[in-house]
Amino acid sequence: MATELPESKTLYVDLQTATLKCSERCLYQSAKWTAEMLTSMAQPAAPSDPLPQAYLHPTSKSQDEALIEASELSSYLLARSYFDVHEYDRASFVLAKCKSAKSRFLHLYAKYIAGEKRRDEDSEMVLGPLDGSATPNKECPSILSTLEAILLPKEDNMTEDDSWLLYLYGMVLAKQKNESEARDAFIQSVNLYPYNWAAWQELGATIGTVTDLNHTIHSLPNHIMTSLFVLSTNQELYQTTDAIHQQLTDLLGLFPNSSWLKTQRALLYYHARDFEEAEAIFDGLIKLDPHRIDALDHYSNILYVME
Amino acid sequence: MATELPESKTLYVDLQTATLKCSERCLYQSAKWTAEMLTSMAQPAAPSDPLPQAYLHPTSKSQDEALIEASELSSYLLARSYFDVHEYDRASFVLAKCKSAKSRFLHLYAKYIAGEKRRDEDSEMVLGPLDGSATPNKECPSILSTLEAILLPKEDNMTEDDSWLLYLYGMVLAKQKNESEARDAFIQSVNLYPYNWAAWQELGATIGTVTDLNHTIHSLPNHIMTSLFVLSTNQELYQTTDAIHQQLTDLLGLFPNSSWLKTQRALLYYHARDFEEAEAIFDGLIKLDPHRIDALDHYSNILYVME
Repeated sequence: MATELPESKTLYVDLQTATLKCSERCLYQSAKWTAEMLTSMAQPAAPSDPLPQAYLHPTSKSQDEALIEASELSSYLLARSYFDVHEYDRASFVLAKCKSAKSRFLHLYAKYIAGEKRRDEDSEMVLGPLDGSATPNKECPSILSTLEAILLPKEDNMTEDDSWLLYLYGMVLAKQKNESEARDAFIQSVNLYPYNWAAWQELGATIGTVTDLNHTIHSLPNHIMTSLFVLSTNQELYQTTDAIHQQLTDLLGLFPNSSWLKTQRALLYYHARDFEEAEAIFDGLIKLDPHRIDALDHYSNILYVME
Repeated sequence: MATELPESKTLYVDLQTATLKCSERCLYQSAKWTAEMLTSMAQPAAPSDPLPQAYLHPTSKSQDEALIEASELSSYLLARSYFDVHEYDRASFVLAKCKSAKSRFLHLYAKYIAGEKRRDEDSEMVLGPLDGSATPNKECPSILSTLEAILLPKEDNMTEDDSWLLYLYGMVLAKQKNESEARDAFIQSVNLYPYNWAAWQELGATIGTVTDLNHTIHSLPNHIMTSLFVLSTNQELYQTTDAIHQQLTDLLGLFPNSSWLKTQRALLYYHARDFEEAEAIFDGLIKLDPHRIDALDHYSNILYVME
């Protein structure tokens, strides 16, 4: 699948904005992935303008929505500060009456995380008598009905502001084993805003076969993020064709220092049982970024196999 | 001590900005305290301007410094995203070559937190043979020498940008039992930027007697934050005079819904062994904010004493 590569300068600004947007919604793993891709690019010329650009604190593109966001700033800041010190119930509670899509997302997402935390605490002991029985996240039903009340009336009138809610909708549907509706929600989410890596990861989790992937591709946006997604999904499905290696080479042109892309290459070699090539890449990654821990389990496995 | 009360609208904007500034530096407890004070104020009229105001992403007031910050934005975003997923060493490593005061602060603060984490891991078991022996934070010496190289040449030419570094400098000095220099650093920090609650808290920790407090007051800025600090320090020193109650009443005029101020009142009654008044306040706080956990230990103690 060939996606046109975007203009490097535009992509750089898009990724900076995306990191801020994910971070503002407390989607920390997404923010991390996006920031890593951003800093793997060739750095553009130093800015000559020290003033804050509009994208430094991204607000909604809709004037009406941006007004609501502005009026809710203090509540948002309080909720965000509670989330950052892991007081998820309080974070959610503070935003209960807020109306902007951003506040609504954080209200529901904090509730979801609070539910996940309680689920972990309620879970049975590993190897205990009830190990393996799934403990549900008790917040999911109320999150689901709130999201349906917000999203269903909108039908096809959704915007980027809704993409985050759709991501959460997909998460809750997936928890309830409603795989195909979950996949549709993730597809809608990445079409409305392609830079939320968490949505792509969850979409990937609903895809179990190459047939699934090929069936899904037609519904995805013509976007660089789609290329990155297709690449990593193929890798996870153990596809190691020359075409995939070529796509990876093209993407490395845009993100020359990306540890994530290099890891994809190492894993392609690993799946093809070419342990020497894989090990050489991992060796280089450790030297570049000594504190990196992502995919170290594979590296350790390679070293063990090669002994 | 009488401080003029500031204009409410100015204070509101100052506190919004302060929350963002603390949050951007990963000082999450400070951000939380500031956001709680902010939302305890009477809400000003809804904004009529949906566009991002300059304070939404506060940059340095110095043009030169703001330019450096802009050129380091991507590295800062990456470091911030690592910090948020608790990868402190990586966060620090990413900013090693950065030059802005903001990046330097986060570089050193992440290193400090990484050191604290390792110190916790290395600490002896509670009730173990070596319990009580202090395990040092091994990062402190290098942080101290870096900070001295940055701060000492500046002497009296410091700005708000340096206030955060001074706060960290005080923290490291205090860790090394250098109390009086630590106190001077905190005093300098709150004079350069009065809204970093963490600096006030650390300053309070260096004050053990009312004489200490009265000696320090003359070096503090004429600012609302000084009033809040003097109030809570008096409370912690078990001072329960009418003058302190009156000051608290004045401050509640500005922050009518502040749980933190109400807690100060409850603790004043508690120290004066007026358990009924204290309990009534705590009862009200729990109703207002059911998920609040701050100072619950005192509430529990009151309920126990009153049984």
